[in-house]
Amino acid sequence: MSAWVLPDHIADVLPSEARHIEELRRDLLDTARGYGYELVMPPLLEHLESLLTGTGEALDLQTFKLVDRLSGRMMGLRADTTPQVARIDAHLLNRQGVARLCYCGPVLHALPDRPHATREPLQFGAEIYGHAGLEADLEALALARDCLAAAQVEGIIIDLGHARIVRSLLAGVLADADQLGRVHAALAAKDASELAALTRSFPSTSREGLQTLLRLYGDAQVLAEARRSLPPSHELHGALDQLEWLARHLQDVKVSFDLADLRGYAYYSGARFAVYAPHANDALVRGGRYDEVGAVFGRNRPAVGFSLDLRQIVGVVPPRPLRAAIRAPWNDAADLRAAIVALRRAGETVVRMLPGHDSEIDEFHCDRELVSRDGQWLVQPI
Amino acid sequence: MSAWVLPDHIADVLPSEARHIEELRRDLLDTARGYGYELVMPPLLEHLESLLTGTGEALDLQTFKLVDRLSGRMMGLRADTTPQVARIDAHLLNRQGVARLCYCGPVLHALPDRPHATREPLQFGAEIYGHAGLEADLEALALARDCLAAAQVEGIIIDLGHARIVRSLLAGVLADADQLGRVHAALAAKDASELAALTRSFPSTSREGLQTLLRLYGDAQVLAEARRSLPPSHELHGALDQLEWLARHLQDVKVSFDLADLRGYAYYSGARFAVYAPHANDALVRGGRYDEVGAVFGRNRPAVGFSLDLRQIVGVVPPRPLRAAIRAPWNDAADLRAAIVALRRAGETVVRMLPGHDSEIDEFHCDRELVSRDGQWLVQPI
Repeated sequence: MSAWVLPDHIADVLPSEARHIEELRRDLLDTARGYGYELVMPPLLEHLESLLTGTGEALDLQTFKLVDRLSGRMMGLRADTTPQVARIDAHLLNRQGVARLCYCGPVLHALPDRPHATREPLQFGAEIYGHAGLEADLEALALARDCLAAAQVEGIIIDLGHARIVRSLLAGVLADADQLGRVHAALAAKDASELAALTRSFPSTSREGLQTLLRLYGDAQVLAEARRSLPPSHELHGALDQLEWLARHLQDVKVSFDLADLRGYAYYSGARFAVYAPHANDALVRGGRYDEVGAVFGRNRPAVGFSLDLRQIVGVVPPRPLRAAIRAPWNDAADLRAAIVALRRAGETVVRMLPGHDSEIDEFHCDRELVSRDGQWLVQPI
Repeated sequence: MSAWVLPDHIADVLPSEARHIEELRRDLLDTARGYGYELVMPPLLEHLESLLTGTGEALDLQTFKLVDRLSGRMMGLRADTTPQVARIDAHLLNRQGVARLCYCGPVLHALPDRPHATREPLQFGAEIYGHAGLEADLEALALARDCLAAAQVEGIIIDLGHARIVRSLLAGVLADADQLGRVHAALAAKDASELAALTRSFPSTSREGLQTLLRLYGDAQVLAEARRSLPPSHELHGALDQLEWLARHLQDVKVSFDLADLRGYAYYSGARFAVYAPHANDALVRGGRYDEVGAVFGRNRPAVGFSLDLRQIVGVVPPRPLRAAIRAPWNDAADLRAAIVALRRAGETVVRMLPGHDSEIDEFHCDRELVSRDGQWLVQPI
């Protein structure tokens, strides 16, 4: 076995991509900062109970586990940062009012999400705690839109749904978690025959309502059609009203709806959204309202937010150009050193040619060089 | 057990410190970029053999291990990034000439390094591959100095040593790795009686030379004293010449020497350095030459570099001031939205007051607000 072979779905990030990711990282954090989101850095490792309490089975399967040699207890590597940020809001900040938090760091998945997915996504996310109104949902949507604009992703579509629509159709239905999970999967896959088989014993209004959901995706017509064809309830109409309000207030972006999709939203409790783009074969952003997520940490605050994977985004936008650098000779003269210091302070990259390597081509594209003319160091095109 | 209790030596980083770390991260990466260092991002997880081959027992003890569910093989969480970057240089980039690489990301330690150390340092480092001359050592030293200046660490002292000095004194001594490890520890701790006990069976020139080393620390006098009092050899004088050259060429910083210290330098093969500062009870930077580190990846290139922990540095410099923000009301007017977009584009933080929270104090210190005057949105002091 060669020492340089990496595990499956694990990869090095080499210079040109790493530079792109780093620039994107700064753009996203600066965009969130412009909205007043404060950066937090939760740890990569926590006790397993803290990471997994209240988050559902999917996250459990995704989480790498190991034993802490200091305590003998089980720890997990975070597979998702959102529950950690909820813990920080609930326990450490403990503010009465609104808290806006963001984060950017690696998460690790024991199993890849998709056939070609990395097991080490670089997750960026933003969350608002403490406001139950739709204004917070709208702010999260606007920030997600602006983050993708900063990342130079073009042609995005924000797809809206609501966790309470399926829930309203299942009201009064007796089914265990496993069965409900399979119903959600069939809805997400738009698999009518599987859904029919799974819901055979359900009351007819639920059964028919769920079948109707399968075709409720597309533009704003979907909401009117849902009001006409789904069994009416207070919960359903509340959810549809919310989606209508959000779509009406969200500016400068195309909006669509998919009322059946609940994929990847184990802890969502209200409106949810996914952002799609041409060339991306999966959603680039997922988010929504998850008011219950802080409950296990003793503080059940309203919460809404989203997350994305920087590596996935870098894969769907054009590479960014490399800023050209300046070549400088290696010698010990004080005036050369001063010239180099001044150029670096001005934001330039100055690469010194180490003795014996003067003729080499380096990865930093050098389009200028520092040369001595009449006792002065000058920058000249190469 | 409360769900919010973290493992020992693991902590959340809250907003004010996280902001400081993020600013420092950018300053360090920009400083390295100014020198022409290209960013790489090796993975957090690798097969255990890749992480540990050739790196010594200390790193093995420090490394968290877990089983890969995909392959059934043992994996490790990186406890040090340097061997990974050597792997990238050797195998992936495979350049003939000089490669300058830098990195910044978390590493994880199964056991803490020091009584109050974190088990999740945020490691930044820079390495030059492919140049065996002292000019590369000097560049690494200058970059380390400039990184600490960018971090606003004041009063630093660069302490120089050399891996070949102790080696020259042990030439011809028969001792196993365990015994040598204890000799290194006694030298680092300046423990004369322990050193005497460990070296009782050594030839007298080695024994006396090692005892002499214990007092060879301090200013440049140390090098002259070493030439006078240590048993002369080609290897010893070569090492002392190198240290003299480096100290003479290194500008704008105080230099000291400690010829006995080999702590934390398992893979170093030439000149080594540590950077100390007032208020820091351990070295802030460790680095040096480690020409052998790429050998296990099939390409034994000269290499020199250093690393540091951003969390440790943030702990010894004054906190950075928070940039003040602008408060804005929440309403739906297009002209308000346009005013907010323009301010954010100009780099300002604009916090919208969500309905019902208008009177709250938030963490972002708002010293101005956006108000409507005669149909215009204006920024006014609060």
